[in-house]
Amino acid sequence: MKSFKIVLDTSIFVNPDSRHFFGKNPKEALENFFNHLPEAKHISCYMPPSVYEELTQFTGKIPAVEKSLLINKTPPSSYESLVPAILVYELIEEIRLRINKGLRIAEKYHRKEKPASSPTEEEKERQIKQLRQEYRTALREGIIDSKEDFDLILLAREIKGSLATSDKGLIIWAQKLGIPCIGAEELKELVYSA
Amino acid sequence: MKSFKIVLDTSIFVNPDSRHFFGKNPKEALENFFNHLPEAKHISCYMPPSVYEELTQFTGKIPAVEKSLLINKTPPSSYESLVPAILVYELIEEIRLRINKGLRIAEKYHRKEKPASSPTEEEKERQIKQLRQEYRTALREGIIDSKEDFDLILLAREIKGSLATSDKGLIIWAQKLGIPCIGAEELKELVYSA
Repeated sequence: MKSFKIVLDTSIFVNPDSRHFFGKNPKEALENFFNHLPEAKHISCYMPPSVYEELTQFTGKIPAVEKSLLINKTPPSSYESLVPAILVYELIEEIRLRINKGLRIAEKYHRKEKPASSPTEEEKERQIKQLRQEYRTALREGIIDSKEDFDLILLAREIKGSLATSDKGLIIWAQKLGIPCIGAEELKELVYSA
Repeated sequence: MKSFKIVLDTSIFVNPDSRHFFGKNPKEALENFFNHLPEAKHISCYMPPSVYEELTQFTGKIPAVEKSLLINKTPPSSYESLVPAILVYELIEEIRLRINKGLRIAEKYHRKEKPASSPTEEEKERQIKQLRQEYRTALREGIIDSKEDFDLILLAREIKGSLATSDKGLIIWAQKLGIPCIGAEELKELVYSA
């Protein structure tokens, strides 16, 4: 059987859309996954330490045996790694577009509040929440926006593995570097069919 | 005499703080620079095509002889170039911080306009202008925020040259890659002392 190296993102066990393949909540999803993993001898799973830390915020502490035997917490050797400059060009361009989008949103909300409408404090807070939501979506969705995201991409590239994630931004940027991505359903199929 | 390879940024001839070393306006500054350059035989100047295009927006068309003889419009071989991954980590982190700053600014302006104060249309436009200014400064200053910026950095790195610029963001990021930077005054000294 073809062997697989898989780098695991937290989104698989945390995002409701993907974790439901494994369990009702992040902790249960991870436990179920761990229970099936020893049988899937053709699969090795990896997780960068930064992502492991992120995951434990949702699942609580992971027992040492499972942690050390099933998840190889390989850190990507980020300082030595080299990436194609074109990736940086694309990142800069993407960010430039999004920064402009963010400004449009800020302007829209600033103009919104007409003096005549006399919004109450409650209404104001509701609008601020909306502003936050809209701004974050415009500036963050579909982009690598954290060190953890980039750790996953570099690790998958370094070990020539696949990236298991349901994060759209991660998928887009992983594919730019030729990294194969699999979703939660495919991951379950691979692990549970063993 | 030690020979120098210098990559020229538009800021040298465009930003008022630096161009005054060479002339009263971008066109005059560039012409004066060109007039002195042939004597400075130990200096070769380079400019990426993208930056050359940017410069001509301020100076108008540059005569072909000066363009071809004095400025070597070498394009950085960006597709083949490799950059240390740590640069991408730092860029992602920097952008994350700035995106948060941008949101704080958007929130501040959204809260600002109290219904009681009934701002006039004119006052509203003034506030929008202020918002734009503040947002752009927070999100763009001190960061590589354009393809042209990155072209300059890659070219200087590729030809092992110095970068002549007065752009703070460029200086910060060039130094991360070990590229020596010189300001307008130093550039003038180097070229005019020949």
